[in-house]
Formats: sequence, structure tokens, C-alpha cells
Amino acid sequence: MIERLCVIGVGLIGGSLARALREAKFVKEITGASRNPQHLQKALELGVIDRYDTDLSGAVEGADMVFVSVPLGAMGTVFKSIKDTLGVDTVVTDAGSAKASVVEAVKAATGVIPDWFVPGHPIAGTEQSGVEASFPDLYKGRRVILTPTEETSAAAILKVRAMWEAVGAVVNEMGVEHHDEVLAATSHLPHMLAFALVESLARMSEQREIFEYAAGGFRDFTRIASSDPVMWRDICVANRDALVAMLKTFRGDLDDLAAAIEDRNESKILKIFQDAKSARDAFAE
Amino acid sequence: MIERLCVIGVGLIGGSLARALREAKFVKEITGASRNPQHLQKALELGVIDRYDTDLSGAVEGADMVFVSVPLGAMGTVFKSIKDTLGVDTVVTDAGSAKASVVEAVKAATGVIPDWFVPGHPIAGTEQSGVEASFPDLYKGRRVILTPTEETSAAAILKVRAMWEAVGAVVNEMGVEHHDEVLAATSHLPHMLAFALVESLARMSEQREIFEYAAGGFRDFTRIASSDPVMWRDICVANRDALVAMLKTFRGDLDDLAAAIEDRNESKILKIFQDAKSARDAFAE
Repeated sequence: MIERLCVIGVGLIGGSLARALREAKFVKEITGASRNPQHLQKALELGVIDRYDTDLSGAVEGADMVFVSVPLGAMGTVFKSIKDTLGVDTVVTDAGSAKASVVEAVKAATGVIPDWFVPGHPIAGTEQSGVEASFPDLYKGRRVILTPTEETSAAAILKVRAMWEAVGAVVNEMGVEHHDEVLAATSHLPHMLAFALVESLARMSEQREIFEYAAGGFRDFTRIASSDPVMWRDICVANRDALVAMLKTFRGDLDDLAAAIEDRNESKILKIFQDAKSARDAFAE
Repeated sequence: MIERLCVIGVGLIGGSLARALREAKFVKEITGASRNPQHLQKALELGVIDRYDTDLSGAVEGADMVFVSVPLGAMGTVFKSIKDTLGVDTVVTDAGSAKASVVEAVKAATGVIPDWFVPGHPIAGTEQSGVEASFPDLYKGRRVILTPTEETSAAAILKVRAMWEAVGAVVNEMGVEHHDEVLAATSHLPHMLAFALVESLARMSEQREIFEYAAGGFRDFTRIASSDPVMWRDICVANRDALVAMLKTFRGDLDDLAAAIEDRNESKILKIFQDAKSARDAFAE
């Protein structure tokens, strides 16, 4: 049970957690915090939070749990603002899509890797953003990855795990670097391909016509290119090393396929497609 | 109105057209033809066709419309089998996803580009295949591209157009080469990216774990990697030139994005994502 939750950044991710914890009766009071009073006012009107504070250092006072769901580029500033007013037992976790950069930002802001911080990443979201798009079922059955460091306290991990399990999520733990590699592969690289493909087609002279003939598969394939550009720029910067490595691996594989097509190597083309279909069908059952 | 339709290859595409024409009462009798009697027997049992013939040259006799929906690699053989038993007014059209290769196959099989052949391509389908997956609404509101050549008779075009309009499709005409470029961009390239991505991830040592953390966006993005590998191998071979050109263009764009990420060029990354989001949001309204 959480006595007072402080959500810093009340958008789709933070707003949905607030709604879900309230629905699960796992929280008594919710404070929203952000630099933007309009967003907070909206969250208050929607009943997502009980009160708000635009001063982050004040907002976390008296909270036993702080959830930081701000863009990756803003993490350092947030931790600098809150570090001195956190209670002695306050636990802080976050929702950043890349973990090494958050751990570095926290270390830079506080001077240590604090035992009260549990780096986390809920694998959930839509192409929408903002508190208006938040809903209590966002995390039901979804995975949340926690990447505790050697310094993280076991009690803090337990408390964050209990919070996520209360809203129906499945919690896993893994190392920071490993998380960043897995996410580069399954999320960041696919987003790069979708953004690059749509941008590539948009620059072709026949663009209007081209999109007219785009069928259902293309629509699904490119849906993620509607995601928030600023958030994704931050992810690229934050997870640069793992993403650049994945882009290189993928580029090698795409070049192999392109060469097989150019060489009319039918058996090689078929093998690539068959392997892909088997893997896709197996995981999507 | 079609007196007798002969569908060569009664799978998802051919079966759905047969069902749709029957539902629209635009056809009196439907013959199924194929080398595979088991598929035909199934189509007969499902009521998709009225009778069948495994001898293609016999199957087209007496038909006023022939619809060839076989893999691209089988087009040449089909046209060789049927060319001598077509009636004097019989119109033939097809559903091949690449058009230059079909026109070449027909020319090689018949010795000329015949006036009775209307190259066509319905932009519709699912990841399923087979007559069991066919349904009458597949073409409703979908586009069908006809790519008549200089030799194609105007009357034949009109007849094929009327057939597609009867099942609710929107018919457009364009040149053979232009069709192949547009489809390389909007369909063939995205399929290559999905196949290559899934195959790339499947070969990583942590593959089982990686797919566990694949969220909703990844699922949509890779759905087309479940498509039929043989059909897609045929498309790669048939539309090789346009597809290789598109792969090169895309690779250049992906390299630009990768370089921007490696160089931490935040403004360039943001611009690419913003342009892509604008284009995606505009066409997907």
C-alpha cells in the first residue's frame, strides 16, 4: 500500500499508473508534479491526481513513493530538484525507455548511485500521449522491467515490484546494459525502421499517390511512425550505443537480403523468409 | 454480368473474388481450375465454385472471363496451357503483385502481348492464404490497379473494370513500370524490412527472451513477416529491379539516420521523426 504517491510528469504513462493504483485501492493520495501547470490542471480535472505542485522539491515532501515519468532528457534536472527533500524512506522509480542513461543522470545529479532509486521500465504505451490518453488498464498483463544496480536496496525493489503487481503487470529484473540491448532490438530499432521508411516515401515525388496505394499491412507497419518525435529523439540519444550496434547488425542482414534479391538467389531469399515467418508465428501465438 | 467465370488458383484471392461476384449476383457459373485437386475439392465443398477441372486448357473452354490468381512463378505455365482453348471473346485478367514480369511471361507464352489480357492487381489480402481464408468482402473499398498495355483492347478493360466495381473495389489504371515502382515502395520494401528484422532478431542468442519483451508496436510492425514465404520469394524475383532500387534508396536514408544518431545530431534526428510523423498522420487519417 502506498500512502502518498508523487507522480512527476502526468502524461500517458504517469497518468495511467495513477488511475490504475487508485482503481486497485493501492494508494491513498496522489500528488502530481510538473513544470507545466496546464497539464497538471487537466490531470486534476480528470480526477487522475488529488493535488499538484509545480515545485518539484516541494511536491515530493511527505511522499513514500515517487514515480518519475518525464522525457529521458529531463531526468537529470528532476533528480537534482528532488534529491534534498526526499524522506528517509522514500522510494523513487522511473519509466525511462533506456536505463543506463537514467542511472548516469541520477548519479550525476546526486553524486552517488542512491539506494532509494529503482530504475524501471514498463513495456507499455500507445502512439498517443498526454494525460487525456491515460487509462487504468494500460499495464494489465504487460511487462515491467526493473534494472536495480548493486547499490539498490532490496526493500526498495520489493516496494516497486508490489506497486506494479498491484496494477496487473508482470515484473522482471535484469541488468541495466542487458535491458538497453533488448530494448534496442525489440523497440528502438523497429521505430527507426518505421520512421525512416515513412520519411523515405514522403520524400519521393509521387508521395501523395504512393500513400494512396498503401494497403493494410503498410498501415500496421508504419503505425509506430506516429509516435512522439521528441520522445524518440531522446531515446536515440540516451540509448545511442546499443541502438547504433543494432542498426549495424540489421544493416548487415538487410544487405544480405538485398544481395540475394539482386543475385536472384531464390533459395537464400526463401530461407530468410521462412526463418522469419517461423520466428514470428512462434512468438505471436 | 459474367456468364461463366474460370478462376485459376482458388486460394484467398481467387476464392474471395468468386464469393464476392456470387454475392453480387454478377456471375452465373464458376469453374475452378488448378493442378491441385484437393484445393479444388475444398473450394467445391465450401460452395466457392460450381465445378472444377485439373486440366487448365479444358477449364477455360466456354468461359467469358478468366481470373488467374496463381503465384507469379506459375504465370508462364498457366498462359501456355490456356492460350489455345480461350474463346474468341474471352477476357483474361490476373492478380499478380508485380506486373512487368506477368506481361513478359504472357508474351513469352503466347508469342505476342495479346489484346484479350488485362494485367491487374487487387491491393488486398491478409497474412492468411488458402480458400478457407477467403471471404466476400475482401475487395470492398479496396483499390484494384489495372495496367493495360498498348495492345490491350478497350472492351476487355471495360469488362474487367465492371467486374471489380461489382464487388465494391475502386479501379485505377497506370502503366506497368509505374505500378511496379509504387508497389515496391508501399508493399514490397516494407515486407523486406519486416522479414529482415524478425530474422535478424531470431538469430540473436537471446532470441527467446527478446521476443518476450516485444510489445504491441513490434507485433503490428512484424505482422507482415508472417506472410507466405514462397509468394514473397516470387515477388522478389518478379519485381527485382524496382525492389533493388527501393532497397538502395531506403538504405541511404537509414544510413543518414544512423549517422545522425552516432553523431548525436539531435536536430537532424528530430527533423526526420517529425517529417515521418506528419506524413504518417496525414495519410492515415
